[in-house]
Amino acid sequence: MLFFTQCFGIFTDLVHLRCRHPIKSNRCTFSGAGPVVCVVNPASPHGDSSLRRCSSLSLRTGQVEAKFPRGLPNRPCSCPLHSCDWEGDSEVVGVHLKEIHQVTTLQGQHFVFLAADMNLPEAEDWLTLQCCLGEEFLLVLKKQEKREGFQQYFAVVMLLGPDSAAEKFTYRLELSRDRRRLSWESTVRSISEGINTVIAESDCLVLSEPLARIFSDNGKLGIIISISATKQS
Amino acid sequence: MLFFTQCFGIFTDLVHLRCRHPIKSNRCTFSGAGPVVCVVNPASPHGDSSLRRCSSLSLRTGQVEAKFPRGLPNRPCSCPLHSCDWEGDSEVVGVHLKEIHQVTTLQGQHFVFLAADMNLPEAEDWLTLQCCLGEEFLLVLKKQEKREGFQQYFAVVMLLGPDSAAEKFTYRLELSRDRRRLSWESTVRSISEGINTVIAESDCLVLSEPLARIFSDNGKLGIIISISATKQS
Repeated sequence: MLFFTQCFGIFTDLVHLRCRHPIKSNRCTFSGAGPVVCVVNPASPHGDSSLRRCSSLSLRTGQVEAKFPRGLPNRPCSCPLHSCDWEGDSEVVGVHLKEIHQVTTLQGQHFVFLAADMNLPEAEDWLTLQCCLGEEFLLVLKKQEKREGFQQYFAVVMLLGPDSAAEKFTYRLELSRDRRRLSWESTVRSISEGINTVIAESDCLVLSEPLARIFSDNGKLGIIISISATKQS
Repeated sequence: MLFFTQCFGIFTDLVHLRCRHPIKSNRCTFSGAGPVVCVVNPASPHGDSSLRRCSSLSLRTGQVEAKFPRGLPNRPCSCPLHSCDWEGDSEVVGVHLKEIHQVTTLQGQHFVFLAADMNLPEAEDWLTLQCCLGEEFLLVLKKQEKREGFQQYFAVVMLLGPDSAAEKFTYRLELSRDRRRLSWESTVRSISEGINTVIAESDCLVLSEPLARIFSDNGKLGIIISISATKQS
């Protein structure tokens, strides 16, 4: 029963050990015996220094260029960041995220998404891109205040590709801390559907603010992420 | 990947097959090859017919009298039903629930809690008692409107016993439907802490109304429940 508590302890210890100067880093990734841990700072609207920015400590994968998704329909798409007004074809949203918002691309099916600065009022979006299984996925954690004074967090994995390709993949998000574990498993949805549609339908991991606090450690929320190909029955 | 979808399909099919006249039944329990399925109608404030009441179709366990928990401290406790003002010692809350609200007691560590009439505006509480591992547990699903127009559901397992005994047990709640699965795993808490404390801390499975709708089928929400002894590390 204490296994997942210990797991979380291990990776937060790793963070403390490896990220002695987090103020200098936007995202840092590292790997021990377990999955890669990626520290994700809140996204800044235009990749400027209004929120904490990046540099070093990218011990693995770092700014790996992803293979660009093929054969996407020419469907309009908005930037998943709340503060960005960009709209364009879904086939170039990945480029937009990398070039304008400096979103990091990781490789592999499994890693720990460690969202930092959860308690900063201006922090609203945490993003990474993930390359695996021949595709590119977007991992988003968003904070929204749907009702006044009632904040919620929404975490989802979306494919930078069409609906027909997205439904071939499944993702799993897991939070664990202090003998508690919450997990969400679902079919991947396409970025072309829009993240706001997914959030409106609650077709994602939904956390109330107190629930997010239960799983946070010193303003950091660790989400264990796995992406896999959907088994055909 | 379709395994849990199929599981849910099987038990909803069972419900349709075995509960042809649900209007006559408050709770019906049955078991095939899988776990016991207990259909739980919304609790009525005083066990009267203001909400749908029970009778037959109790194919297994039915109104099994539970062994009363031993050695409880004399701690005050409220009735977990929103509409009931009863207060008393925590050692008699189980008797109150059985005698006044006709809450059914099941036996065994695993079963499917099938909350009916989720969409009825007046439905607020779904409860069963569960006897296993030498103790008696209370399973509660509550609907609350913490913010105007924003309903949430809270599901939790609590021990009818003291804190020191509760922490020796773990429970798991799982929802699955249409290639989606949500699970919550936690240490059991004592009824003497009060269900409102647990809800205020969000130390339970929390569902927004749209999320509950995703997992519901025709107004019924199935929760797979498991209780186990906490492994000592």
